[in-house]
Amino acid sequence: MLSIIGYYTTQFGELWEHSLFDLVEEAASGVLKSTSIEKKQIDAVFFGNMMAGVLENNLLSSAKIAEVLGIHVPIFRTEGACASGGMAFHLATRYIQSGSAKTVMVIGGEKMTDYSPEEVTDALAAASSGEEQEAGMTFPGLYGMMARIYLDKYEYTEEHLAHVASKNHYHGSLNDKAHFKREISPEKILKSPYVASPLKILDCSPISDGACAIVLTSDKNLVKRGKGVEVVSSEMATDVISLKNRKSLDSIEATCIAGQKAFKKAGITRREVGVAEVHDCFTIAELFALEDLGFWKKGTAGGKIKEGEGKYGSTSKLIINTSGGLKAAGHPVGATGIKQIGEVYLQLTGQADRRQVKNLRYGLAHNVGGSGGVAVVTILGS
Amino acid sequence: MLSIIGYYTTQFGELWEHSLFDLVEEAASGVLKSTSIEKKQIDAVFFGNMMAGVLENNLLSSAKIAEVLGIHVPIFRTEGACASGGMAFHLATRYIQSGSAKTVMVIGGEKMTDYSPEEVTDALAAASSGEEQEAGMTFPGLYGMMARIYLDKYEYTEEHLAHVASKNHYHGSLNDKAHFKREISPEKILKSPYVASPLKILDCSPISDGACAIVLTSDKNLVKRGKGVEVVSSEMATDVISLKNRKSLDSIEATCIAGQKAFKKAGITRREVGVAEVHDCFTIAELFALEDLGFWKKGTAGGKIKEGEGKYGSTSKLIINTSGGLKAAGHPVGATGIKQIGEVYLQLTGQADRRQVKNLRYGLAHNVGGSGGVAVVTILGS
Repeated sequence: MLSIIGYYTTQFGELWEHSLFDLVEEAASGVLKSTSIEKKQIDAVFFGNMMAGVLENNLLSSAKIAEVLGIHVPIFRTEGACASGGMAFHLATRYIQSGSAKTVMVIGGEKMTDYSPEEVTDALAAASSGEEQEAGMTFPGLYGMMARIYLDKYEYTEEHLAHVASKNHYHGSLNDKAHFKREISPEKILKSPYVASPLKILDCSPISDGACAIVLTSDKNLVKRGKGVEVVSSEMATDVISLKNRKSLDSIEATCIAGQKAFKKAGITRREVGVAEVHDCFTIAELFALEDLGFWKKGTAGGKIKEGEGKYGSTSKLIINTSGGLKAAGHPVGATGIKQIGEVYLQLTGQADRRQVKNLRYGLAHNVGGSGGVAVVTILGS
Repeated sequence: MLSIIGYYTTQFGELWEHSLFDLVEEAASGVLKSTSIEKKQIDAVFFGNMMAGVLENNLLSSAKIAEVLGIHVPIFRTEGACASGGMAFHLATRYIQSGSAKTVMVIGGEKMTDYSPEEVTDALAAASSGEEQEAGMTFPGLYGMMARIYLDKYEYTEEHLAHVASKNHYHGSLNDKAHFKREISPEKILKSPYVASPLKILDCSPISDGACAIVLTSDKNLVKRGKGVEVVSSEMATDVISLKNRKSLDSIEATCIAGQKAFKKAGITRREVGVAEVHDCFTIAELFALEDLGFWKKGTAGGKIKEGEGKYGSTSKLIINTSGGLKAAGHPVGATGIKQIGEVYLQLTGQADRRQVKNLRYGLAHNVGGSGGVAVVTILGS
């Protein structure tokens, strides 16, 4: 059995005083302290990071983390764009299951705000196809096209998207580590300027800095000592990178496949999941996720969110993105997948503070790379 | 039991007609054809690549490979600088051992020659510490300092280094896929211009393009069908990134640790290894590798290579870098770790053409990231 026994996240936001590896060090030290385990008990480290190479010519993080931690164990960097963190976690579960490690630290981190929005937008575009990049498409543009198709097909309006952002900003207001901690009304969101119609600035997740770390173990003695949560399943799938080659543009097939595999492996139903962190890089992406993961029928998510489903404090059976999601908690891309799993861990262990959901048995985290070329789905159980 | 059942490498060299993913596609198709297996039999793919992000803003290769191959399975990109390929292979072994896959394709690829030498040198420097980068150190500079210390300490001269390069160029002349296929005498190497004293241009591996792919499986039926070689061990270790924080500068500690673990796991002696592909990014690095892996005593490798040990056709018990090494076969960084393992596979299965070593039982591949911050050691047995 695999368990998460600790989680630490730095503040998410514009952290101009700190470098990427300052944040990584804070996250690593923080999770060791919270679990009361020593560095020498860590058998391997997985690190999810997307863009340190592109933005700051910063590669071989394995050795940089070895220097920060002062250990010689295997340390791996994985990159799957915005799913880099989820990918790192997925591989860490398999590394332990292979018998090569008992206790693994999984870190996600990204430093984005030291660069101009243009530089970061260009760097993020590295996760689109060469053809899309050459055509001048950015990620708001790619998701904007998908949003237009979805809204038209299911007769929704931009107001339905605004309710996703508003819900997540409310959740962010309950999370001290969130990049944005204030509520924003749907009306205000609707008045914000367009980035790529129908997506407005307040439909988009921000550019953020931050790092998170998780300790994952198969060591029963360590699990007994602290607050452990079982990793019930962690599954991953890929899809073609180019939108033009996708079967459908109002759905993310990689999410469908990874979700089906994860629920099959877990042997539970969607109704047993009480909290989900889903990949809302743009508001439209949250609607796709809820439908593609099988929580709600295709074409119904827009209506349900507008009716208040998924919001903390509602009577909803599934509370969605209690961390504030990428939208309000922030989106330091390599950190996001770890933060999502960490948030579910906090919820399942009763450590989610002002946003604590009650009577939880299972939680799910869903991390997407690019416009849907990669999806990782993790189910945790208390 | 884990076996390699196929290997394919593209030509290494200046391949201006081909993009990175052209090369990846050639390698993937090539290895499928050589093993007569179909894409649907591949359960996962691991891809080692260092610098596509930095050089060509090209990330999320998982989805790019999904598009090339037309499959939805988990696809992972790993980055450990010049050890990206070895790292991908190592993780692939664990992925199969975890029970999540039976048959995995491991690809390594890099496209470097479309950029100026200055751009590539800067991009490679991403694998050094921030402080080293800021001080203007490049990799020839970092290895040059280590070479100076080694030559002084063991009373060797630049001639000892030249014999490493000359041997590897001889081997390259026997390998049709090598970037450089001509012999170069030690005298000529000694007359080449300095890059970072005592290292001359002909002590350095070149900037190359290329991609390789391996199929790794635990499926006995697939192994029976073709030419299989057992993966006896695959181990990895890390070290601090900064030279100033290393215990020693005439040795790579990560190699020592990974090598010890790999031999312990394999349960064989150094004498049982008949061929080794070691990481000769610079001539000095081959001497370090042979000593740190325990083949030869510390401080003796320079003399032995000069005496002709390790050369194809000699009476040496250990033939070193039959592919031509990084020096002559070329060094498309993400591909290198896969090419090394692939070359050992070719040797152990009698497919090494004009450079075929006889009576082999075991072979070793050794892949280093940066100035030694990561090392991966793989032992294969026939």
